[in-house]
Amino acid sequence: MTTTLSRTDAFLDEARSLLGPKGLTTDPADLTQWLTDWRGRYTGRALALAAPASTAEVSALVKVCAKYGIPIVPQGGNSGMAGGATPDDSGTAILLSLRRMNAIRSLDAEAGQCVCEAGVILQTLHETAEANELRFPLTLGGKGSATIGGLVSTNAGGTQVLRHGTMRAQVLGVEAVLADGSIFDGLTVLKKDNRGFDLKQLLIGSEGTLGIVTAATLRLLPVASARATAWVGLPTITGARSLLRFVDRAMGDTLEGFEVIPDHCLESVLDHLPDARAPLSEHHEWNALIECISAEGDNASLRSELEKVLADAMESGLLDDAVLASNESQSEDFWLLRDSISAAERALGPAMQHDISVPVEAMPEFILAAIPEIESSFPGTKGAAFGHLGDGNVHFHILAPTGAKPGEWEENEGKLISARVYDLVTKWGGSISAEHGIGQMKVEELGRLGDPVALGMMRKVKEALDPAGLLNPGKLVPMPD
Amino acid sequence: MTTTLSRTDAFLDEARSLLGPKGLTTDPADLTQWLTDWRGRYTGRALALAAPASTAEVSALVKVCAKYGIPIVPQGGNSGMAGGATPDDSGTAILLSLRRMNAIRSLDAEAGQCVCEAGVILQTLHETAEANELRFPLTLGGKGSATIGGLVSTNAGGTQVLRHGTMRAQVLGVEAVLADGSIFDGLTVLKKDNRGFDLKQLLIGSEGTLGIVTAATLRLLPVASARATAWVGLPTITGARSLLRFVDRAMGDTLEGFEVIPDHCLESVLDHLPDARAPLSEHHEWNALIECISAEGDNASLRSELEKVLADAMESGLLDDAVLASNESQSEDFWLLRDSISAAERALGPAMQHDISVPVEAMPEFILAAIPEIESSFPGTKGAAFGHLGDGNVHFHILAPTGAKPGEWEENEGKLISARVYDLVTKWGGSISAEHGIGQMKVEELGRLGDPVALGMMRKVKEALDPAGLLNPGKLVPMPD
Repeated sequence: MTTTLSRTDAFLDEARSLLGPKGLTTDPADLTQWLTDWRGRYTGRALALAAPASTAEVSALVKVCAKYGIPIVPQGGNSGMAGGATPDDSGTAILLSLRRMNAIRSLDAEAGQCVCEAGVILQTLHETAEANELRFPLTLGGKGSATIGGLVSTNAGGTQVLRHGTMRAQVLGVEAVLADGSIFDGLTVLKKDNRGFDLKQLLIGSEGTLGIVTAATLRLLPVASARATAWVGLPTITGARSLLRFVDRAMGDTLEGFEVIPDHCLESVLDHLPDARAPLSEHHEWNALIECISAEGDNASLRSELEKVLADAMESGLLDDAVLASNESQSEDFWLLRDSISAAERALGPAMQHDISVPVEAMPEFILAAIPEIESSFPGTKGAAFGHLGDGNVHFHILAPTGAKPGEWEENEGKLISARVYDLVTKWGGSISAEHGIGQMKVEELGRLGDPVALGMMRKVKEALDPAGLLNPGKLVPMPD
Repeated sequence: MTTTLSRTDAFLDEARSLLGPKGLTTDPADLTQWLTDWRGRYTGRALALAAPASTAEVSALVKVCAKYGIPIVPQGGNSGMAGGATPDDSGTAILLSLRRMNAIRSLDAEAGQCVCEAGVILQTLHETAEANELRFPLTLGGKGSATIGGLVSTNAGGTQVLRHGTMRAQVLGVEAVLADGSIFDGLTVLKKDNRGFDLKQLLIGSEGTLGIVTAATLRLLPVASARATAWVGLPTITGARSLLRFVDRAMGDTLEGFEVIPDHCLESVLDHLPDARAPLSEHHEWNALIECISAEGDNASLRSELEKVLADAMESGLLDDAVLASNESQSEDFWLLRDSISAAERALGPAMQHDISVPVEAMPEFILAAIPEIESSFPGTKGAAFGHLGDGNVHFHILAPTGAKPGEWEENEGKLISARVYDLVTKWGGSISAEHGIGQMKVEELGRLGDPVALGMMRKVKEALDPAGLLNPGKLVPMPD
């Protein structure tokens, strides 16, 4: 016991002398807020909060952690969805915040590239890009807190993946500190480079289990000059897929968003937001929110192009009704309806939420098969699937029966429901985590349902690059007991 | 000795009974042609040539190899540029040809996807895509022999990378047999999938050292409906970069090729091809070959668009002269000039060829610095840089002094020159292998010049996934002695 304590003290002394008082704290007042994830689902403990100011400091700190065998939990904006940045409750790990490393090291407008440190907040990157008449083509709800390091480490998605891909597609280079404290310097952008395994790709999406991302080179695109948003009413979800293909073909590379919303979700939102209005006068089983963005031309011409395409689609029987947003503010109103579904649902009672994907072509059939199966197996529940149809990724929520006891229901029937949803998704060749990652939330389910060959490869790679298991232990990689 | 022989015999018996007479041969008449790479630079020996007919057969064979400790050298079209598919001369390995696995398992025109077995020849894929009014957006000189498995394993490049990326960008899914014979099944396409490390990316470009690619899901694009090709004369290579940026911006997503050719290379080609004519009436220090492809509109309108952009560029002083190909046949004539540079050069005597990249922005300055440095350090040599400026990737050739003895010169001064070129490229933050891979040709140079941190990661991953070192030994990964 004495030995353990003094080793911990020795570690803290060494780390403190390395990082200074701004870089290391053990004060609960500073620590507490970062030990619970933003949704309040996970709470852990930590030896200390370390906040290095540079890659060199991260490297030095990781070396000290390696020397003393101290686990490291990296954290960005603490806005993850899977508890990936929350330590366990053993209190043996340090929480390594990257938030102080928030410099945009360089921006080359001509090349459309910038180098961001891990702690740069997504919103800041958006604003910096805009100031340079560029844009960063990835956004999501947590943009005011999510950091570049966290987005890279979790391969974040969002609402523009249909056209621009996930974070992986935006990352041109990565700098990371490895388990032994060495620095992987992969920031230089080479369009062609066949010097071996693509180690950058291995680090992206690895949730800090193979290395700590300290900076990334990101691509920037020409600023959007035109935007057109439409709200469409449809009889069926299979019809939504046909419309998606039609619009995708007709609008070329401008189609950036194709979200689907069932009627009952729209109803919940309208009940929840007293000032909101339904975009269409009549009810439709399904709604689609379509957004096109172009770097050329103006709003009016893009809108009239989309309008013509939707009129053609209507003539072909691909939709029942459609309305175009006549200005930016109406576009925002349409998106507010889409973005308020989760909040509206929370007001209705407990629900199990699942971030899942199947092949784009199979999604309508999956929804049509899975919702009745769940609803009939768990009487009184109500299924809702909405979101990124164009990515084969919906948020698949199951609402509790009326009167279900919050807290208790999730722990009991809710857990059974989630297991069944993940069974179904796996049967359909899909993913139990489309865009939110595995973190600690789904690591057990991944161990249960993941392909044993892929899991075996993951474990071997993890053990090879982090043999002591100090990098974000218990996250992402299901290790054998 | 007896033991070794009988173990080999036992292995061959087991492999033969697994694959049948069509699947395994030790007859030198069948083997010899595959034991030398197509450029005749490397010759090896092998125990046998195995040609399994299915993924299950590959898996079973690899298990037998693992049992007897037999190294495996996978081979596709044997048209690689770095000796990556040629065994060493120990004769202990088997050559594993994937050529019999040449089925296109499925093609979904609606989704723009197809699943190809490793042995499908690129040309066949092009023709199949075309028959479905689609295209596969990667091509290269060896398309008549290069196989999908080889292209995936080497992350092949080509002339359309500027717009469509390397092979990595075309691969939506991978199936591979791992070192223990297990099958990694990653063919299902999910636009969003965050279930852990992206193992597919690890296999792409790993040259058969981590697994044997047996099939891949590839993306297909709408067929090209319009093409416009231009030949441009320019005073400087830095001017070529300015023109690249100008055309890239003005032509939007249609710019697919931007190749640069110095005047003296064009001269060599014109000497070499008696029927060829210079596209422009006067000499220019540099030439650029520009190609735009569109899935919409017709040739005439795309040509007039490009013509207008080039006229604007000329007015802005970005080029000296330009001519547009007036039909397909003239486009082909322009490309023939570009594609004949290597052949024309060979007629001039020995040369050292280097497939290198640096950041796109730095390429002109690199060429301007590196050629004089080499020419002055090695008197009588002549440097030539030509190719994919838009990718930061040129073919950097150094021609021998007049009278140099073929064979001898390459082995002596040539080797020193290559080492110097790779030193310079590394100093400029570039890659000693842009698109041809490492194979056996550059593995020593990669060991000498690679980032020690990246090399360390590669070795650890290689050892973790192929602990016995049986998958394509001696290729790609510089192992410590």
